[in-house]
Amino acid sequence: MLALVYDGEVSLRPDYPNPTAGRDEVLVAVRKVGICATDLEVSRGYMGFRGVMGHEFVGTVVAGPQQWRGQRVAAEINCVCGRCDMCKSGLANHCRHRTVFGIDGRDGCFAEQIAVPVRNLHAVPDEISDAEAVFIEPLAAAYQLVRQVQVARADRVVVLGDGRLAQLIVRVLKHHKKRPTMVGRHAGKLGAADKQGIQTVRVDQFVPAAAADVVVDATGSPSGFEMAMRTVRPRGTIVLKSTFAAAEGLNLAPLVINEITVTGSRCGPFSDAIGALYTREVDVSALISAEYTLAEAPAALTAAAAGDNIKVLMDVSG
Amino acid sequence: MLALVYDGEVSLRPDYPNPTAGRDEVLVAVRKVGICATDLEVSRGYMGFRGVMGHEFVGTVVAGPQQWRGQRVAAEINCVCGRCDMCKSGLANHCRHRTVFGIDGRDGCFAEQIAVPVRNLHAVPDEISDAEAVFIEPLAAAYQLVRQVQVARADRVVVLGDGRLAQLIVRVLKHHKKRPTMVGRHAGKLGAADKQGIQTVRVDQFVPAAAADVVVDATGSPSGFEMAMRTVRPRGTIVLKSTFAAAEGLNLAPLVINEITVTGSRCGPFSDAIGALYTREVDVSALISAEYTLAEAPAALTAAAAGDNIKVLMDVSG
Repeated sequence: MLALVYDGEVSLRPDYPNPTAGRDEVLVAVRKVGICATDLEVSRGYMGFRGVMGHEFVGTVVAGPQQWRGQRVAAEINCVCGRCDMCKSGLANHCRHRTVFGIDGRDGCFAEQIAVPVRNLHAVPDEISDAEAVFIEPLAAAYQLVRQVQVARADRVVVLGDGRLAQLIVRVLKHHKKRPTMVGRHAGKLGAADKQGIQTVRVDQFVPAAAADVVVDATGSPSGFEMAMRTVRPRGTIVLKSTFAAAEGLNLAPLVINEITVTGSRCGPFSDAIGALYTREVDVSALISAEYTLAEAPAALTAAAAGDNIKVLMDVSG
Repeated sequence: MLALVYDGEVSLRPDYPNPTAGRDEVLVAVRKVGICATDLEVSRGYMGFRGVMGHEFVGTVVAGPQQWRGQRVAAEINCVCGRCDMCKSGLANHCRHRTVFGIDGRDGCFAEQIAVPVRNLHAVPDEISDAEAVFIEPLAAAYQLVRQVQVARADRVVVLGDGRLAQLIVRVLKHHKKRPTMVGRHAGKLGAADKQGIQTVRVDQFVPAAAADVVVDATGSPSGFEMAMRTVRPRGTIVLKSTFAAAEGLNLAPLVINEITVTGSRCGPFSDAIGALYTREVDVSALISAEYTLAEAPAALTAAAAGDNIKVLMDVSG
């Protein structure tokens, strides 16, 4: 099958072996996929991953238990053991033995087919298009924020970053009746949030004032985290949504002096995301910058890394 | 008066000008002081401080309002405006315009006299000795931990560090029916905790297993923070109690991947600390490694920096 593979470098393989479904797994024919910042990291060696890239997808089950066959599905990305202390304590996303599609130890979705554990599957309602369904996984990650951190209605919330995840986060916050301010570098991306009625500020006009109750760092850069420490008020909360490479000279003393709380936040509840797309509470269509086919994957990756693009999708069904 | 001053270097001054009490302040004749890690940092240039060092003290009010005169007192270290947004929202320790004894913009207590705002004063009961009273401020900082972070009785709690603050923290945790494990480098310091029935482990025999519910980093080193990230379980909490200089190559990705919460924690409630000393819930006497006079301050600082000493006091009254 056709697949986009990372094995030290990115390559499009026309003859990658088809996956086989293991015990309690189904085979999914991939319909559409999304490219996320983590995929770009993987393409630079993140996590030492080797295999088929990609983790955001919608597809159709083509082999597996009768009740799933023919179903259009999305899938949680952490494939878990169900037996370790984390799984048993309700924290399966932190399974000690997990593999993660396209990120850690398991082939991902930038391919014609993918093997998926049954427990990871979520049926996608007909009312949600393929393009929208690709957003279920990152939208769930955005919902994780409001699950993990109490945000009061009067709280001053600042979201640092204007990329894919930041765009979803401000929409989720707005739907929860919060009034986030988005701080970003790109006029086009800020414009997309503006159109949703979200307050935006160019980073070169933003003055951190240690006054925000909650700051979400979705910049993916050490300088973003340092700005977050200067933006949050004493005893406030920073939500760290994106990983970044080790920072030179990062000084955490402000966390202690100002008694700041930092909460790392990763994958989230698919049910919240599917519900929000089904009810149109969150509109993601305007976030799609470009669509490619899987055969055009190298160009799609380049587009996803370009400063002014928000979300780049790839069509696989064709 | 005699004072230990930092002005780019540490010097003992026999003729430092006596302080004058400002509006709503008293003059305190210092009786006894403690040396803390922050004082050692100040002596290396921390916060760019200039003036009389020191912030842990007990003394007697010698000038000021009638009801305070002759009282033996300890004092909170943050001198606040009472009018800014932080003061008005009950977070006066984070006052936007604060000065801090011996740390930030205000002369400290390593001197014969110190000027103290009335609102900072706490009367010290006769049942608490001068030597014990010096521990009120750091013990309050230890109590801040249980104020800020919910620790369940069954939680696995690991305290990294065996110094002054770590010793107080394990005692406070034990008093709160928690069972902390202390991880440290120094046999003598670990022995002091052992004697209180606290489980201790030498750091060279400690294997971080991503299994602790709460990890307190009281090491004051970047390597301690990295060990904390490897010691805490996914979704667990790191309490950061000590500042350290900027770290080279510090990678915060584990915070996101494992959805860890980090809470910075600084000054705490004096009333809790005074209460704990009064009722003997926390015994601090065994933590005193050495006592000097203020005239011997340089030697006292050297002793406080030595690996196997826990708490070094200086007598000022004499």
